[in-house]
Amino acid sequence: MSNEVEPLSRLAGRSRERGNVMVSACPSRLILEHVTSRWGTLVLIVLQRGTHRFGEMRRAIGGVSERMLAQTLQRLESDGFVDRVARQTVPPHVEYSLTPLGRQAAEQVKALADWIEISMPEINKARERR
Amino acid sequence: MSNEVEPLSRLAGRSRERGNVMVSACPSRLILEHVTSRWGTLVLIVLQRGTHRFGEMRRAIGGVSERMLAQTLQRLESDGFVDRVARQTVPPHVEYSLTPLGRQAAEQVKALADWIEISMPEINKARERR
Repeated sequence: MSNEVEPLSRLAGRSRERGNVMVSACPSRLILEHVTSRWGTLVLIVLQRGTHRFGEMRRAIGGVSERMLAQTLQRLESDGFVDRVARQTVPPHVEYSLTPLGRQAAEQVKALADWIEISMPEINKARERR
Repeated sequence: MSNEVEPLSRLAGRSRERGNVMVSACPSRLILEHVTSRWGTLVLIVLQRGTHRFGEMRRAIGGVSERMLAQTLQRLESDGFVDRVARQTVPPHVEYSLTPLGRQAAEQVKALADWIEISMPEINKARERR
């Protein structure tokens, strides 16, 4: 088989494979880290409510700095979870929303955050017992 | 109402409240950070498979150091998610397992990791398009 065909077919085969977060070199671990990063999680949850401007997101997420929010959005954009659209309005503004893949990621993260929020009374009790 | 009674009843009332991860001072955000920390997530997933000794966990989680694993286990133990039992065997050894609350947390985190692992082909495609 020629070199032009072989690498492509191998790449295609590899990209069809399921990831394994237990393997440190697996790209799925990188995605897990992006999605579960301090601000990544909260950005996904806020965008699940709908399209947001940068300033709206900053106000919704308590404690996030401009720099961290911008970094987080860039990373989620390059992972294919967030869409960034610059509107040609006066003044121009930028809108962020979830891609279909981002909506699936946000659902998972939201379920986890919901469970934590609802379980806080029980978690507080468990923490007091320690 | 006397000072001895009032603070207790207020505390009880507060601990029945649902958390809100968007508020930076809410304890639920701290729990979210513990559960979604790089190693916290992977420890919960490994312990979902059953009781593990320290060395077994270290081998199961690619790339974790002894120090980080010990720190992570201590934190999950004080959150009430992990039980630590020292067996009086020869040689003595320590076993880690999930509490009922920890099993619930692990289920949420496992669902997220499963989604990422299964979605890797689609995520890879999205990343290549950027």
